[in-house]
This record gives sequence, C-alpha cells and structure tokens, in this order.
Amino acid sequence: MITDAYAVRTGIGPRPLAGGRVPRPVIEVIERDDGLINGAPADHYLGEPSEWQPHDHRALRLCRGQVLDLGCGGGRVAVELQRRRIAVTGLDTSPGALAVARRRGLRDTVLATVDEFGRRAATRYDTFLLLGNNLGLFEGADRAPVLLAALASLANPGARIVAQGTDPYGTTDPVHLSYHARNRARGRLGGQLRLRLRYRLLATDWFDYLVCSPAELETLLTGTPWRLKSIDDADHPYYLAVMELNP
Amino acid sequence: MITDAYAVRTGIGPRPLAGGRVPRPVIEVIERDDGLINGAPADHYLGEPSEWQPHDHRALRLCRGQVLDLGCGGGRVAVELQRRRIAVTGLDTSPGALAVARRRGLRDTVLATVDEFGRRAATRYDTFLLLGNNLGLFEGADRAPVLLAALASLANPGARIVAQGTDPYGTTDPVHLSYHARNRARGRLGGQLRLRLRYRLLATDWFDYLVCSPAELETLLTGTPWRLKSIDDADHPYYLAVMELNP
Repeated sequence: MITDAYAVRTGIGPRPLAGGRVPRPVIEVIERDDGLINGAPADHYLGEPSEWQPHDHRALRLCRGQVLDLGCGGGRVAVELQRRRIAVTGLDTSPGALAVARRRGLRDTVLATVDEFGRRAATRYDTFLLLGNNLGLFEGADRAPVLLAALASLANPGARIVAQGTDPYGTTDPVHLSYHARNRARGRLGGQLRLRLRYRLLATDWFDYLVCSPAELETLLTGTPWRLKSIDDADHPYYLAVMELNP
Repeated sequence: MITDAYAVRTGIGPRPLAGGRVPRPVIEVIERDDGLINGAPADHYLGEPSEWQPHDHRALRLCRGQVLDLGCGGGRVAVELQRRRIAVTGLDTSPGALAVARRRGLRDTVLATVDEFGRRAATRYDTFLLLGNNLGLFEGADRAPVLLAALASLANPGARIVAQGTDPYGTTDPVHLSYHARNRARGRLGGQLRLRLRYRLLATDWFDYLVCSPAELETLLTGTPWRLKSIDDADHPYYLAVMELNP
C-alpha cells in the first residue's frame, strides 16, 4: 500500500488504476470488530513536513540523542529527523514500507518487531518515537508492560518515549460510544480497538490498537520502568505524551 | 454515505469525524468476491458539471424528450438536466441519496427498483440514462433481458438508452486478468463483477455489476426490444452506448 501511495505521490513506479484510466487515491481500509469499516487516504503516511499536524513538529523538538522511530512506515518522520542531522533508526514490520523509506533516503532501517529487535540489538537509544497515533502500539493492559520492557531493554539511561495518542472519549457518536461500552463490558479499555487493515488482496491479522486518555496511559505505566513526564494536549483530542525511564 | 458526502462537500448537516478533529473524506468501500477491496472517495457522486468527465457532458447532449435517470443517487446528473429545462425523473433505491437529490433541487424523484417502477408507472420515457458506469446495472446475461424488458415497458416509441460503460479488457493487472478467467470458467462474462458496498456499519447484499466491452453489450441486446445504435469511445476505456427501441 505504501509502495502504491508513493507511486501516486511521486510518479515513481507503476500507479494502481481501478479499472479505468483515471488515477485513484490509494485508500487504506480499516475494519473494526463491530463491523465498522472506514477508508482513509494512505497518502498521509508520506506527508512532507509542510503537510503535518502541528503536534508532529512539536514532537520532533522533544527528541534527544539517538532516536528509534517505531512503525516508521515510509519514513515520513525519520527522513526529516535525518535531514536535521539527528541520528535515527526506522523500525517497521513491513518490507515494502521500509523499501520506500530507503528510497526516500533513510539510511538506517530495521525489519523487525520491537520484541525481536529488543532481543538482538546492540545499539541503545535515547528517544523512542511513536507518532501517527502509534501510542496505539501499546495495544492494551496486557501488552503495554511487555512493550515497555522491550523498550527499556533498548534504552540508554535517561531515555524517553515520545508518543502521539488521541483521547477517544470526547465523541458523541453512538457507534463509538457503544463500542467503548462493549469493550469495558469485556474487561478491555474503552478505546482498545480490535482492527485489521486491508488493501487490495492483502489483509493483516486482527490486532489490538489502543486509543486511550492520558489518565489511562498513566495507569498503564504503573509497575513498568517508565513514568509519565508530560502531556501536550494543545491539539486536543490529539496529544503528545513524554514518558521517562525511571532512574 | 451520500448524506455524509454531501455534508462534507457543503457543510450542510453533521460531518463524520474519524476519532479525531480532522475531517476525513467520505470513502465508499467496494468488496469483490475474490477478496479484492478498494476504497473510493464518495464525493464524485456529487460532482458539479465542471468536475465531470468529458463523456458525461457528451451524454447529456444525447438526451431526448422525457428522461429517466436510473440510479440517480444524489442527483449529480439529474439536477443539471433539470437546470437545462429537460424533463427528468430521478430513480434510486436509496432514500438517503434521494433526500440529498431533493435538497439539491431535484423535483421528480422515485424510490423504487426499475422493475417495481416498470409495473406501476403511468409516465412513459424517451431517454433512459445510466451514467456513472451504470451500464453495470445490466448485471449479466440473465438479468440484462429482464431489465431491458422493464425499460421497454416504460418507453415511448423511438425511446433510447444512453449508458456509460467501461471496457475492462485493456488491463494488464494480473489480479483482474485472473478474475476475468475465473468468471469465464464459471459461465459468467469476464467483467461480471460480484460486489458489495460498505460504509461504516452498512453493507449491501452481494450483487452483480457488469463491466463489459461494446461487443459483449451488442450480444446481450440480441433478442431484446433494443438494438445498439452507436458507441462513443473517445475516452476509452470508458464509452457511451446509445441503444434504441426496435420499431
């Protein structure tokens, strides 16, 4: 999908056509386990800094030292960090997305899950960056401590996590409100989405993706090596959370 | 979906937000029975004439007398015909789409299938208009004669069908080529798509939608009250077919 979106954006590589001659935007299809389906243009995964949301720019100013960009995709953020001469590694599980990131000039890419990389990496990092709503990679109360332990194993002393999340609880949409209630009735966090992504003939497995409030995030950190340092919610409901490694 | 697309385009009515504050385009999700999934912006259903493809403009010049716009949706074409003082009825099976068409000023709308309307209508028509790829409503070899008989029952002497189709056989995409082959192995036309449409929690039933070549179209007309009068394929692979009632 990222390969196709890159082709549409830049003209590099074959562009997908839907039947006819008129080019169509590349659309990511997001299915939720209550049957809700949404399509979203994939082009935003490749947005230039001039197209970014304001909180993305503020997030870059929160980076310190050696940066690991988790779920770097096509390198939207990592390429800009590198341009600013900040040392950055892009981590993703998608070979296609990493190929696009490398084509855009990203030098240091790793094809692995965080857990795999945590077991084998020799490098240690000062900043773990989870932008594009990638606080969602915390998944939920079961997974978050495991992910946070993997990040701690990759961390230099004094390391931080800079993650962008969205507070899901301002909505009045009954579809979302009933989904939150259903989740809670099952012992899950309200915004613990169960999703799969589809593009043409491809589909991911179903996975959890966490949309949580800052208060829920703080609770998830209890008992982990990390503590909440600050929340920037100037673009509410979007926010930037900075977490720091306990000394 | 048309209601939401209209709200995004005009600001009239609540706009759907996906979780956050940034408005998203309204996307129609199209599933094919081989697992192919595509998303397409729904806004094109509401395009103003300045945004149309050239063949849509040529189609309007092929209209004569009293026009029935089949699958008129939000009234994209019918509203423009009415503005040109051409008598037009908009037919659709979607109450929401017809509500948008009426809000945009379309005066004569009918909520029915073609078959229902063919059994009960007192009016007779001179032109049946199937734009936006709605030659697809012919469905396939079983359904086409039934639809064509229903249109004949609604027709004045000398009536015509003006339909926009797409020739599917110019593609080199292996996904589509193998779909065509699979269809033919099952005794279906190569481009006889089996689809369902999804939007948020809504899903249509699975239905056939025909994408055929002009030669296939001519074969489908054999033994019906209609004959092929002309093909305008200046915008190949898109084409406009004019069919006329046999005298």
